[in-house]
Formats: sequence, structure tokens, C-alpha cells
Amino acid sequence: MPLLSFDNPVFAAFAISAAIMVLKAVAMSWLTVVRMMQVNGGFRSPEDLRRTLLNPTPDPKQLLPDERVERIRRIQQNDLENLPFFFMAGALYVLTDPPLALAQWLFYGYAVSRLLHFAAYISGQIHDIRATLWTVGSLIIVFMAVMALVHALN
Amino acid sequence: MPLLSFDNPVFAAFAISAAIMVLKAVAMSWLTVVRMMQVNGGFRSPEDLRRTLLNPTPDPKQLLPDERVERIRRIQQNDLENLPFFFMAGALYVLTDPPLALAQWLFYGYAVSRLLHFAAYISGQIHDIRATLWTVGSLIIVFMAVMALVHALN
Amino acid sequence: MPLLSFDNPVFAAFAISAAIMVLKAVAMSWLTVVRMMQVNGGFRSPEDLRRTLLNPTPDPKQLLPDERVERIRRIQQNDLENLPFFFMAGALYVLTDPPLALAQWLFYGYAVSRLLHFAAYISGQIHDIRATLWTVGSLIIVFMAVMALVHALN
Repeated sequence: MPLLSFDNPVFAAFAISAAIMVLKAVAMSWLTVVRMMQVNGGFRSPEDLRRTLLNPTPDPKQLLPDERVERIRRIQQNDLENLPFFFMAGALYVLTDPPLALAQWLFYGYAVSRLLHFAAYISGQIHDIRATLWTVGSLIIVFMAVMALVHALN
Repeated sequence: MPLLSFDNPVFAAFAISAAIMVLKAVAMSWLTVVRMMQVNGGFRSPEDLRRTLLNPTPDPKQLLPDERVERIRRIQQNDLENLPFFFMAGALYVLTDPPLALAQWLFYGYAVSRLLHFAAYISGQIHDIRATLWTVGSLIIVFMAVMALVHALN
Repeated sequence: MPLLSFDNPVFAAFAISAAIMVLKAVAMSWLTVVRMMQVNGGFRSPEDLRRTLLNPTPDPKQLLPDERVERIRRIQQNDLENLPFFFMAGALYVLTDPPLALAQWLFYGYAVSRLLHFAAYISGQIHDIRATLWTVGSLIIVFMAVMALVHALN
């Protein structure tokens, strides 16, 4: 059986967590759009001040940063700094043919840590909570990358 | 036949669109370089004001943001918020063994939507056009991620 | 033998360089944390000014940009603009079943160019050195993406 197949339960666990992370990341883009519409601002391109169906009464203040929009952008940036490396490390880790239970803990643990990180960030929890949740996900990526490296060097 | 193989026409369609998207993304970096050379500015690091072969007459103003450079940076940031998730969702979707015609529509549709998004953004078209093209690509990613999730959960 | 397997020496070379790049990227996040603790600032979220175990004496100046932190953020941003495209182009290139020696030169050459780029950037070397190292990595990505595209179109 090929390892990169939905028939491999380790891969299925990776696919579930990776697909949820993709949807989570895309949701950040949509949330940015929703927030920009709510605050009617937080835009970044000069042409966004032209009168259009979506922006019938333009105002130069719409190009100023708005914290409610910037918060989502920071959350999204944090995703960009994490998810592509989870995807790569996770796929390599699947190919090391790891024990199912451990792989499920790592993949689902990562996904849960990122969803909780989002909840903590969007609700403005103190830095220490956010940092702890971020650390869990970061260490999972490091573990999987090191396992793949050891496997490849052997 | 393995699904992740150039012999699988679904994978070949994914590979074509993914390779074009890689080249598109790398082109944004090169376009940033070209624009920085054209405007002789838009730099970001203090050491870029040292006198070198590429910058024979440094000037502190070279560190100020320049809209012609910043526009490319925004386009590139939009790629970073999209392409890694297309790569992951697309690869998972290939492994669901989808119908060829549908897969081709999704993969090529995504690539075309991103190339048109670039054309609209760099030429400063109104936000509504840019947003529509972005939405097409975003929905394609969501569809493929949901299909992969459903497939993995079954 | 499947091409995406640690038994394939081309894939093993890709896995080694990709795993090292994942660890390099994650290290940038940790380095940002270390620098923020060293300068006791460079934070970005308003809630980071609340009194906590990790920040016992908050000060509004902690939200100002600090060049020692911003430098790491720029290095990390450069990774985000490069590594996901190396991962995708590299994986596609493995599937073209390339000659082992060439593949090793490309994969290891990429990893070395990125590590040297980091060394040049963090030590504030002139732009020309940084640009040369960046160009090596960028051209390797372009070469692999073009090879994959040609292979898929044949």
C-alpha cells in the first residue's frame, strides 16, 4: 500500500488536519474581508478609494490601518509563518511510516493548538496564553522535521 | 498506477497549474527587484544604503516606501496568502482520484483566476474586479479542501 | 519503487533539504522571540502591554518597531516568499525522476544558498551579497518548476 493514500490511516489523519488548516487559513482571508466591510476601512491600495458598488462613498480615511482589521492580518501572518511548514514536515513524516497513535496525536494536536491560538488571538488574550499555544504547534513541526531528517539520513 | 505520478492526467493538470503558480510567485520577487531598480528606492534594510556596485550613490530617501514597489509587495503577499493552500488542497484533491474534467476545470481555473488577479492588481483596477477574481480562486481552494476532508473522513 | 519514498535517493535528498529548510524557518520564529525578549520590545498587539509573568513591567514603547527584531521579521518574510515554492517545485521535480547527481546539487545547493543568505542578512552584509545568494536559490526554484512543467506537458 502506498503511504500517500487515503487508505493509509496515518495519511488520512494528516489529510484531515491539513484540510482543516487550509480551511482555517482561507477563513482568515474571508474574515479580513468581513472586518473591512464592518469598519468600512482598513484598505491598502489607492484604487480602493474609487467609487464602486462595494464602496459607494469613498473616504481617504479608509486607507488608514484599523486595529480590528490589523488583528486579523496578524493572525493570518502567523498562519503563513506556520502552516506551510506543517504541510511539508507532516507529509515527510507520513512517509517515515510512523506509529498511527503518535501520528494522530501530532496531527490533531497541531490542528487543535492552531484553532485555540486563533481563539486566544482574536479575543485579545494575554501574550503568555498565545505564546504557549504557538509553542505547542511549533514543537510538533520541529519533531516531525527532525524525525524525517533522521529517517532520510539513515 | 500511483495517483501522484505524471502518468495520471489529473496529477499532470495539477502539476501544470502548480508549476505555473510557482513561476508566477517567483516572478513577483523579480518584479520587486526590477521596480526597486527603476525607482532606485523602496529598500528596507539600513545596510542597503551602503555604497556598492548596485547602489553607487546611496541616499536615505531610498529607504522610504515607494508605491510602485509596495504594489508588487502587496500582490506578492496576496500570493503567500493563497498559493501554499492551493498546493496543499490540490495535492490532497488529486489523491481523492476525482473526475478528470472537473479537476482540470478547478486547477486551470485557479491558475487563470490568479493570473487575471495579477493583471487587475498591477494595473490598478477597481477593488470589485480584484475581489471577484480573488473569490474564484478562494472558492476553488475551499471546494478541494472540503472534498479531501470528506474523503478522509469516509 | 515509488518515487516519493525514502528508498529513492533523489527523494531522500529532497527530504533532507526540505526538513532543514523547515527547521530553518521555524528557527526564525524562535529567533524573533529571543530578540523580543532581549530588547524587551518589538511587540505588535495591544494586549502585549498587559502585565503578565513574561512581561512584568509593561511600557507603551514596547509596541514600537525595533530594528533588531524587524531584521529577523524581514528574514522570515524572505523565507515565506521562497520556501513554499521550493517545497512545491522540489516535490514536482522529484516526480520527474531526474538524475541523482543533478538533483542533489539543486536540493543541497538551494539549502546552502538559503543558510548563507541568512548569515549575510543577520550580519548586515551589503545588499549585493544578499542579492547574489537569493538569486542562486531563486534560479534553482525556476529550473525545477520549468522541468516539471515540460515533463507534465509532454
